[in-house]
Amino acid sequence: MTLLHVKAFVFDVFGTVVDWRGGVAREATPFLRRYGATHARPDAFADAWRSRYVPAMRKVISGERPFVRLDVLHRENLLDVLPEFGIDPNAVPAEALDELNLAWHRLDPWPDSIAGLQRLKTRHIIAPLSNGNIRLMVDMAKRAGLPWDAILGAEIAQIYKPDPRAYLRTAEVLMLTPQEVCLVAAHNDDLAAARNCGLRTAFIARPYERGLGQTVDLKAESDWDVVAGDMNELADAVGA
Amino acid sequence: MTLLHVKAFVFDVFGTVVDWRGGVAREATPFLRRYGATHARPDAFADAWRSRYVPAMRKVISGERPFVRLDVLHRENLLDVLPEFGIDPNAVPAEALDELNLAWHRLDPWPDSIAGLQRLKTRHIIAPLSNGNIRLMVDMAKRAGLPWDAILGAEIAQIYKPDPRAYLRTAEVLMLTPQEVCLVAAHNDDLAAARNCGLRTAFIARPYERGLGQTVDLKAESDWDVVAGDMNELADAVGA
Repeated sequence: MTLLHVKAFVFDVFGTVVDWRGGVAREATPFLRRYGATHARPDAFADAWRSRYVPAMRKVISGERPFVRLDVLHRENLLDVLPEFGIDPNAVPAEALDELNLAWHRLDPWPDSIAGLQRLKTRHIIAPLSNGNIRLMVDMAKRAGLPWDAILGAEIAQIYKPDPRAYLRTAEVLMLTPQEVCLVAAHNDDLAAARNCGLRTAFIARPYERGLGQTVDLKAESDWDVVAGDMNELADAVGA
Repeated sequence: MTLLHVKAFVFDVFGTVVDWRGGVAREATPFLRRYGATHARPDAFADAWRSRYVPAMRKVISGERPFVRLDVLHRENLLDVLPEFGIDPNAVPAEALDELNLAWHRLDPWPDSIAGLQRLKTRHIIAPLSNGNIRLMVDMAKRAGLPWDAILGAEIAQIYKPDPRAYLRTAEVLMLTPQEVCLVAAHNDDLAAARNCGLRTAFIARPYERGLGQTVDLKAESDWDVVAGDMNELADAVGA
């Protein structure tokens, strides 16, 4: 079994462990109503906000701008997306924008996440390897009860996934070889980048991450070390 | 109450949360016997090893050498201390030295630590602000059941306490002002450095950290924001 020597499971979080789309839509609903976007669909707003995520990180990865934490990128992207929904960002108090930006700190886990993480934690180190910043991950974990052993990821590495440094620095901080670390993710491209760095890979299917009409990442697109339907199936597969 | 606005408690760990002297002595006992130091006192060995800690970190703080994690300094200090106990480091297999070096990963909490941390955790972020590296803190927490929300400290800041950057970077990563962070420590000098950076301060008395003959840090030497006899008294003082 390929995962026999794995000592740590590190996790993509947005989409893999928690439901970002449902959580952001929930938090955006009263905001959109209050600021006049009464006919906007909150899930479409979540999608539009999220769609700015990869391009914003790309500017950091390319070196076009220095590393800033994800909360900063989310806040900039929020200003960018509001006009698309007929809202003038200058007409919204800064405090209301800050508050909505915290939606990403208040996402709910998928129903199987906590039970699976608890099982995996008994004999392995578990930590996020997320692009989310440390405080975001801490707030999310405390609210939702995610039992992380440490908060790792982009802010520790000072670079975003899928840059190889994000994966390699995480293994290094854990004092493990890349082969002793397994990335768990619902996204084939994240797993491909991790595998290129030597990490083990576990795919978890999250076919509703992007709603009922999801067309990407519906299934494993490579021979990842484990392919599981949810976090409990992953725990089963590694004997946890 | 001065701690009303505190959102995170960060902790010195060696001596404040765990008993380093007892733990290192316990782990050193079979080692000393095996390698011929049959008459050595394990607690004296722990003291001698620990006495190299501050001078080794000072070389990093001064810039004389780049940051290396504490496991590296402990390993170097171990080679340095062995001849004092009549052991030639070259006569000991590297694996045995590595194993003894992990003693610092296997320290036991003081009897009140876990209960107090659990109480403080309910309404505050709790994290180590230790000079110990991330993996050391993770191993210790998993073995002992320390319920940290995140692992912060020297390795995140890439500098050791009492350098101001260690305290300030910890607050910054938590997205808090220094005044919203309280350092909990059994050492007056650590608290003084934290206060100089604007952090709140809580002293916990650990009069047996250095054994029965302890002469330093027996009591609070300044008007720290809280002075407590143990972690539960601290929880009482902040209404946790």
